Amino acid sequence: MRHDVLALGNAIVDVIATAEDDFLIRHAIQKGGMTLIDEPRAEALYGLMGPGRVVSGGSAANTIAGVASFGGAGAYIGKVRNDELGKLYRHDLTATGVTFATADAVSGPTTARCLIAVTPDGQRSMSTYLGACQGLSTLDVDADLVRSSAIVYLEGYLWDPPAAKEAFRKASEIAHAAGSRVALTLSDSFCVDRWRDEFLGLIRNGVVDIVFANEHELRSLYQTADIDTAINAMREEPVLAVVTRSENGAMAIARSETIAVPAYPVERVVDTTGAGDLFAAGFLFGLAGGRDHRDCLRLGALAAAEIISHIGARPETSLRTLAEQNGLG
Amino acid sequence: MRHDVLALGNAIVDVIATAEDDFLIRHAIQKGGMTLIDEPRAEALYGLMGPGRVVSGGSAANTIAGVASFGGAGAYIGKVRNDELGKLYRHDLTATGVTFATADAVSGPTTARCLIAVTPDGQRSMSTYLGACQGLSTLDVDADLVRSSAIVYLEGYLWDPPAAKEAFRKASEIAHAAGSRVALTLSDSFCVDRWRDEFLGLIRNGVVDIVFANEHELRSLYQTADIDTAINAMREEPVLAVVTRSENGAMAIARSETIAVPAYPVERVVDTTGAGDLFAAGFLFGLAGGRDHRDCLRLGALAAAEIISHIGARPETSLRTLAEQNGLG
Repeated sequence: MRHDVLALGNAIVDVIATAEDDFLIRHAIQKGGMTLIDEPRAEALYGLMGPGRVVSGGSAANTIAGVASFGGAGAYIGKVRNDELGKLYRHDLTATGVTFATADAVSGPTTARCLIAVTPDGQRSMSTYLGACQGLSTLDVDADLVRSSAIVYLEGYLWDPPAAKEAFRKASEIAHAAGSRVALTLSDSFCVDRWRDEFLGLIRNGVVDIVFANEHELRSLYQTADIDTAINAMREEPVLAVVTRSENGAMAIARSETIAVPAYPVERVVDTTGAGDLFAAGFLFGLAGGRDHRDCLRLGALAAAEIISHIGARPETSLRTLAEQNGLG
Repeated sequence: MRHDVLALGNAIVDVIATAEDDFLIRHAIQKGGMTLIDEPRAEALYGLMGPGRVVSGGSAANTIAGVASFGGAGAYIGKVRNDELGKLYRHDLTATGVTFATADAVSGPTTARCLIAVTPDGQRSMSTYLGACQGLSTLDVDADLVRSSAIVYLEGYLWDPPAAKEAFRKASEIAHAAGSRVALTLSDSFCVDRWRDEFLGLIRNGVVDIVFANEHELRSLYQTADIDTAINAMREEPVLAVVTRSENGAMAIARSETIAVPAYPVERVVDTTGAGDLFAAGFLFGLAGGRDHRDCLRLGALAAAEIISHIGARPETSLRTLAEQNGLG
């Protein structure tokens, strides 16, 4: 079977609860960011959080679930354990129609959890215990699956668990040998801070062909407070860059052309969790289907608008139907 | 510590997924109802469902979480196992501020699950595996806790696991001996079908003082297709009856007076799960605070409107704040 997109990422179950801003301050949670935590901190923080909703997440997995919701053929590589949360994760991702054949870890740390505090402004602040994700390795990269996919999509967060880097590099090599494209999301400005030089290496040495970033991540990559400086620096890189700008829409930047589209209007921003992930879903679905960059951006903006209008990072309505209703079918 | 309301119920974790109507037909799920299932059926059905959200539920527990959200002092008696879902359940209910001290089951069936299919019309259809709930018994009824509570609220669903009936009767006896009131929700028209004579006995023999019912349940109780006939029959019973009528509002019926209030307008009905539970929360909170029946009904209608405007049966905004904003603070 051919796949439009294969995504590699940290397989993480989200526990989402609403919180006031002072909760973040009291418990030293970086607002708007993703902070890595260990299991004792995860247990302690969970005990302090309000009532939660448990939903499957993980950045690249959200993206691939979005591709499937558009009607695309998606596959996923990521690591869960054979525990209750792992079963839930596998069920949810498989139920979206995504091919997810990575073997469970049968020992070691438990399935990863991300504790997400959503403040009244719709902003989400994430504390992640990577757990079983740390077991993802080159052994999990199924070469046939990579070769079957038009685009391989990798999340920058994979740079955090050490063995996953090698899985990432292996997937990129196989994809390029098969004539497929490789995309990377910078994931988070703090993640860029941790891995700036390596990310620039991936971009400049042909390991990736397409880069997704929001303004924070782009400014962090080039260590500048000025977004135009960062965009101009990105324009010089040998990649297609897709830059998301929240309510200001999004841009596709290549050396020769820049295309911008506005954001879709949203009645009320409920929870921004997954906005970037779903933007990538729309863009990649369009790209795999041979659509031009403007349509790809529009598909991304549409999916992002759907995801921020409710709690959770997986689509609640069919993106395929939504695309048809908005003249993008 | 004094409690406004103590609720006894089946402690159930909800797994909520959207589904089309033909999913219900294909898998023989009673639309709008609550069907009891065994563990193999629960496993099979879960495998067939779409991606789900896991949230703590259980009818009476939803009610008591609602009472706490209004700012009332709530307590709960219900049975979970010491497994992952049980931990999640205890966390979520405790995090709402409710006192929940019932001991975990340490052996036997796993924590109860309710698989909820939400169709595009917002209607929910429930398939429940009672699991650990079946272990709730008179041993779990803490007499001091019952005596500390102004109102004891019992769900009709407790009639399904056999040992829970006795827990229910014991709680009622202790409450009445302490001068507290006892309320019962009829829970579901199919539940009324299963236990009609016993429910009428509870109402006529002074075991309960207040009865919550929707129109389906009331018609089922008196086996009539005509709602006015059912309401007139209820008026003759020696209880205060609270009848919810969906978009037609709600009524408080006693022999001497009938008070009706309209429903609060809702922009879009997303998921009706918990509407009756939260109506009861508002009414009971008002009653425990000495408010008149009209205000109690209004508080119920307000809480019901909040709950049906999003997925899940636990409030997502502070009901206390909502009450203040609507002149009911």
